[in-house]
Amino acid sequence: MYDLIILGGGPAGYNAADHAGHAGLKTLVIEERALGGVCLNEGCVPTKTLLYSAKIYDYAKHSADYGVKFENPSIDHAFVVERKNKVIKQLVSGVGAKLKKAKVDVVYAQAVIKERNAEGFVVTAGEKEFVGKQLLVCTGSNPALPPIDGLSDSLKSGYALTNREVLDLKAIPKDIVIVGGGVIGLEMASYFNSVGSKVYVVEMMNNIAGPVDREISTMLQKEYAARGVEFILGAKVTSIKDNSVSFEKDGKVSVIKSDYALVSIGRRARTQGIGLENIGVKLERGAIVTNEFGKTNVPGVWAAGDVNGKSMLAHTAYREGEVCINNILGKKDRINYNSIPSVIYTNPEVACVGETEESAKQKGLDVNIQTVTLKYSGRYVAENEGGNGVVKVITDKKHNNILGLHIIGSYASEMIYGAAMMVETEMRVADVQKLVFPHPTVCEVIRETMFMI
Amino acid sequence: MYDLIILGGGPAGYNAADHAGHAGLKTLVIEERALGGVCLNEGCVPTKTLLYSAKIYDYAKHSADYGVKFENPSIDHAFVVERKNKVIKQLVSGVGAKLKKAKVDVVYAQAVIKERNAEGFVVTAGEKEFVGKQLLVCTGSNPALPPIDGLSDSLKSGYALTNREVLDLKAIPKDIVIVGGGVIGLEMASYFNSVGSKVYVVEMMNNIAGPVDREISTMLQKEYAARGVEFILGAKVTSIKDNSVSFEKDGKVSVIKSDYALVSIGRRARTQGIGLENIGVKLERGAIVTNEFGKTNVPGVWAAGDVNGKSMLAHTAYREGEVCINNILGKKDRINYNSIPSVIYTNPEVACVGETEESAKQKGLDVNIQTVTLKYSGRYVAENEGGNGVVKVITDKKHNNILGLHIIGSYASEMIYGAAMMVETEMRVADVQKLVFPHPTVCEVIRETMFMI
Repeated sequence: MYDLIILGGGPAGYNAADHAGHAGLKTLVIEERALGGVCLNEGCVPTKTLLYSAKIYDYAKHSADYGVKFENPSIDHAFVVERKNKVIKQLVSGVGAKLKKAKVDVVYAQAVIKERNAEGFVVTAGEKEFVGKQLLVCTGSNPALPPIDGLSDSLKSGYALTNREVLDLKAIPKDIVIVGGGVIGLEMASYFNSVGSKVYVVEMMNNIAGPVDREISTMLQKEYAARGVEFILGAKVTSIKDNSVSFEKDGKVSVIKSDYALVSIGRRARTQGIGLENIGVKLERGAIVTNEFGKTNVPGVWAAGDVNGKSMLAHTAYREGEVCINNILGKKDRINYNSIPSVIYTNPEVACVGETEESAKQKGLDVNIQTVTLKYSGRYVAENEGGNGVVKVITDKKHNNILGLHIIGSYASEMIYGAAMMVETEMRVADVQKLVFPHPTVCEVIRETMFMI
Repeated sequence: MYDLIILGGGPAGYNAADHAGHAGLKTLVIEERALGGVCLNEGCVPTKTLLYSAKIYDYAKHSADYGVKFENPSIDHAFVVERKNKVIKQLVSGVGAKLKKAKVDVVYAQAVIKERNAEGFVVTAGEKEFVGKQLLVCTGSNPALPPIDGLSDSLKSGYALTNREVLDLKAIPKDIVIVGGGVIGLEMASYFNSVGSKVYVVEMMNNIAGPVDREISTMLQKEYAARGVEFILGAKVTSIKDNSVSFEKDGKVSVIKSDYALVSIGRRARTQGIGLENIGVKLERGAIVTNEFGKTNVPGVWAAGDVNGKSMLAHTAYREGEVCINNILGKKDRINYNSIPSVIYTNPEVACVGETEESAKQKGLDVNIQTVTLKYSGRYVAENEGGNGVVKVITDKKHNNILGLHIIGSYASEMIYGAAMMVETEMRVADVQKLVFPHPTVCEVIRETMFMI
């Protein structure tokens, strides 16, 4: 008998379990594959391992600009993949150790919610049954695989890949078609472009990077177009077969033959086959409906992470899991989705938080908008020959508080949390002006921006 | 007749001038050498240019760990120095353009305050005289050059160098003795170590990096010792002559012969020869005495930057200059020295803000202290084979607010401003716990730390 059974050991689940365990809840995590979930095993972290190797390789191409010369640079893709697996192994075992320390039980099996009885919720895992007073569903998401002609066979033949298989290619493809220009697609485009593949990105919308501020995503697109990535926007993929991707654009059908096709058109909450229907958990468009406290419609059943279909980001999942645990413990807690940052780990990096120019307009907000070049930073100039990164800030015209901040350029990923703090705590422009930023840094431009708006 | 005459066009001066000009004050900057001051011309920015080239070169040494191979890496020091000069030129001209846009006059000459008359303060610059209703003194600092036996002659002969000359060496020295293990000394030690010089650091104190938290500075020292830098601590330099540095340690005198000796034992406010005595500006230990508003003892005379001897950091100077201008404009403003971050641009970087373990103890503060490995970050593990960076946080035991935060590891420089915000706004541990940091980043460990204290 557990106080809490957590379905899924990904970012939402393992972090919630850690907090629950330390708070004294008798906690069980049931995980089907590996602790760490998609994020750690076939998402965020493995891609960053690959991208870091690509970044080092990129240095070789441009190092002469900085007075450093190398000969015969080469990248050993198989080694990179092997190292990636080693890094994952280390981190997964770290998660395991963490849960052990928190006295959390872990069972590796497929979990199915069987029923609710007088004692609590009955969950089967493999051949065993467990009972928990409360349930936290963190089953994550799967890649969206729409019924495109030939896709199913192409996945079987190995021509079509998802985020999982693409990370384990044994050799660098000569060419790859990436279907979907969102975060996953762009990061993989960046990697394969760096290591020498010809990369095509086919995207249904007229812009890449989904909800990212359009000015920023356009800059990113130009940057990669200049490096040889071919972007085909406003194109509907009609088939993925015979080692080719066919798409329709402006009424015309074109075909690209390639070594591989990566399908990265989004992710879907994983709510099927886990018995949610047995206890009447409400879904909407395939995702579990939760309120701001992480509660589902069934008392005692909570959900966090991708499975609620809200944000589909690992760091949101962490926080959602914590919010659930706090509320389970009777400490009222809620999450503010407005101040959650997001990052694309291309080179240059893109990092964003809060309103974009487009979202502000759509909501009818009265805002000031200012885009400032990173060339105001001495460090940026010192480190980026020909770089054209920017900080873009969006403030409320009446209250002068910061509603959104967007960066394209070096270190963006490590700088954005401070901007998220500004949005979360509703800091005003004048408050940021009085902060002292270290010199010389790229982040100084955030402060500089506050004097220009 | 000017509303404001600013003596010195370094970080304090040029930034204050920019703000004053935009606020409508008729402003004159008198600069003896070049706009940008020591920081831009022979300090912060040029060193970062060199260090970035060294960093790229360092990648070559370790790139095989990440699956990337190069042959025959080499660094062209002369090119690096030439590029550094190009970067400086670009940034200095940027400062000039900024001041022009703010309608600030600039005169290149040595400024001497002559007198105060009925109209205001009379300043001579070259052969001209200017009158300003108010004065802002931003004359910066000079390297401290104590009366060490032979130092004066060694500076003339070119054996002894200050921060200025060391940046213009035409070739990589075989060996260099660095006298003074503070920020400047350590950054240059890092550069010369990376490019292949044998480096000795001779420091009078028993630790490097001055006021930096001892746990952190000890880690930095170990790191560089492992890379071959020889640290000689608790040693008093007795002579710098005959291409040698002699020092006394534990009662024993030793001598190191070397290509060069860099003298970087601190900086002294530049208050002589500028006529401060003609208007009665009060000095203390050679620095201008200012209050928290930037006021000197003489009404209408303000001072900002190194010349007040308080912080000796460019970013402090920026803010001090702004504080002066705001107060001149009648907008009460003051600076909080407790939340000013500082950075050492070694590799790994060190970045700090607020109380250290030592300073907290000295002040008798009742604190919690926690040091957390950066290995909790998947990105850190992915990018740092064998890295052992940490975040160290110091909180008030009673109020649970963040008093100090210290980082050694990658991206520290670009992460610390967020921690400075936490200290400045007196955020509590629970407040930071509720913030969402992007994943996977190194900065996530800052948040992680909040759950461990």
